[in-house]
Amino acid sequence: MIMTAEFPDDARVTLAHGAGGRQTAALIARVFARHFQNPDFTADDAAILPVGNFATGRTAFTTDGFIVSPWQFPGGNIGKLSICGTVNDLACMGAVPRYLSCAFQIEEGFPLRDLDAIAAAMAETAKAAGVRIVAGDTKVAGRGQVDGVFITTTGLGELLPDAEPSGSRAEAGDAIIVTGDVGRHGAAILVARRDFAIDAAITSDCAPLAATVRALFAAVPDKSAIHTIRDATRGGVGTVLHEIAAESHVGIELDAPAIPVAPEVRGVCGLLGLEPLYLACEGRLVLFAPQAIAPKLVETLRALPDSRQAAIIGHVTPDFSGRVVLRTEIGTKTLLPEPSGELLPRIC
Amino acid sequence: MIMTAEFPDDARVTLAHGAGGRQTAALIARVFARHFQNPDFTADDAAILPVGNFATGRTAFTTDGFIVSPWQFPGGNIGKLSICGTVNDLACMGAVPRYLSCAFQIEEGFPLRDLDAIAAAMAETAKAAGVRIVAGDTKVAGRGQVDGVFITTTGLGELLPDAEPSGSRAEAGDAIIVTGDVGRHGAAILVARRDFAIDAAITSDCAPLAATVRALFAAVPDKSAIHTIRDATRGGVGTVLHEIAAESHVGIELDAPAIPVAPEVRGVCGLLGLEPLYLACEGRLVLFAPQAIAPKLVETLRALPDSRQAAIIGHVTPDFSGRVVLRTEIGTKTLLPEPSGELLPRIC
Repeated sequence: MIMTAEFPDDARVTLAHGAGGRQTAALIARVFARHFQNPDFTADDAAILPVGNFATGRTAFTTDGFIVSPWQFPGGNIGKLSICGTVNDLACMGAVPRYLSCAFQIEEGFPLRDLDAIAAAMAETAKAAGVRIVAGDTKVAGRGQVDGVFITTTGLGELLPDAEPSGSRAEAGDAIIVTGDVGRHGAAILVARRDFAIDAAITSDCAPLAATVRALFAAVPDKSAIHTIRDATRGGVGTVLHEIAAESHVGIELDAPAIPVAPEVRGVCGLLGLEPLYLACEGRLVLFAPQAIAPKLVETLRALPDSRQAAIIGHVTPDFSGRVVLRTEIGTKTLLPEPSGELLPRIC
Repeated sequence: MIMTAEFPDDARVTLAHGAGGRQTAALIARVFARHFQNPDFTADDAAILPVGNFATGRTAFTTDGFIVSPWQFPGGNIGKLSICGTVNDLACMGAVPRYLSCAFQIEEGFPLRDLDAIAAAMAETAKAAGVRIVAGDTKVAGRGQVDGVFITTTGLGELLPDAEPSGSRAEAGDAIIVTGDVGRHGAAILVARRDFAIDAAITSDCAPLAATVRALFAAVPDKSAIHTIRDATRGGVGTVLHEIAAESHVGIELDAPAIPVAPEVRGVCGLLGLEPLYLACEGRLVLFAPQAIAPKLVETLRALPDSRQAAIIGHVTPDFSGRVVLRTEIGTKTLLPEPSGELLPRIC
């Protein structure tokens, strides 16, 4: 449950909140420290972490900046998103997310109640992902210098022994699995933005997937058999597949009818002429693993709350290296065009 | 020497550069990977670091967001600043900075040549500080959604054995040392902004101080004798002193004539009615250590390039706990007012 604070409607972030003096300390105490409290949290310049205790001694380190307009959308807000994005990046490296830092850049005049809701969502999502927010920074920018609030999160994760998923390890014969229906986050943001006067009830898939990845590795005797894990965020599943095809020097053949797409997402894409494969997800993974273990992985995924619609959507072939081919419902094959900025709707 | 790239005048950052597709990869390769190259640098989702090898097994973790307008100023630019800020935060914890991540939020239309100059300054400063930039993220915001470029850096540092500087360890009898003249960065930004039509040649003190801190710890047989180190950034030396007085439950007495202030900084402060103690520094430390070792620390500092004007500026007293008193040139004592947002000129 998200805690709600007692900020009046008209309480706003001021430049003084970002000046490093008394008001900054009060903002940190009243909003961030209250929500993020844990034994490693610091209001000091840096947190001191027992990272040397990590079993493998190897640490994954990743950073991600979040800009999203509107700051809240069906299924989440920028706070939840900023935790999911970094947690999922760590998980995709085969790491257990342990610690996060977060840096806020807030526009003068941003409602304190909204900032509080963002911090509450961050705390709730971090708890669900088993990660601690330990350090942070708050800057306030003048009106018009930043649009609402930007958040940058940076994560430290403990690498699972023997796990070594990588975008360059996809192999001919691998099955390609997606953990749920695609394009949900991008479609939810497009609709929430109301640029297109489309009324559709689309909920973002935004979710932390650390537990999902741990369950996958626990399900296979040989952890190195999970060749590749990627979260399909910016640019969607299509962009991720192109990246993996290029990095692994393999071809990818997708079975179009097998790709799960929610009817409401398909509807919005049809209206706007968009390909769901290029819409961002924020709670979907793309996995590459040998076909022999793929059914076991799908079974594991379908038993978990955020991946009930997991499906095998294609396979890796030694042919047409670096390319992604879509086999359509009527059996014809078409090349999935390589993503370029112009093709992608801007959602962040 | 900063490398200059061959970007034409009119080459600009576009939304496509931030969409996660081919243009994003090109921007990373052409600007960031080129400048930041080192064995641990990743263009992947996360860097894998041998943090478990740190001698003490304890790691310092800190994050800081940088917004500065204008993005370049005499003595540096936002890129240099973003490295110095995080490196210095780590150094102040008694840690040797090892790894940095950086996240960019760039306004559509920002000149590529300027972005390149920022990345070059980051690479040069990181090299000078002995730290590796290993992971990053690039987002592009629409015109007007962000003012120029924001950078968030996050750092990992290896704690020096036995070093335990802290804002709560200042003790009655400690000498207070500042490593150079105060208020330079804040004054440089105020002048560079041209809001006040003041023409003064003021160079920011922006500098990485990791080597300075290492030299200080090497100069004393008992590292724990250095009680407190803080970099006097946002809010300046005055804010830092108030924080330490409060955290350590002690009083601070400053010797006003001993505080080094450059004549040009004093001039600008006089014109604008500002107190140099409340202007930001970006290359100055405030140290607390017993008076017996203070001369040795000052001698060590004066032999180093970024702290030639180091000076003892006051001492800690058991009286007036939590307060900062200024002893003036004519021997009278005045209370240095507690910083509050309204008093501080906004420089970020």
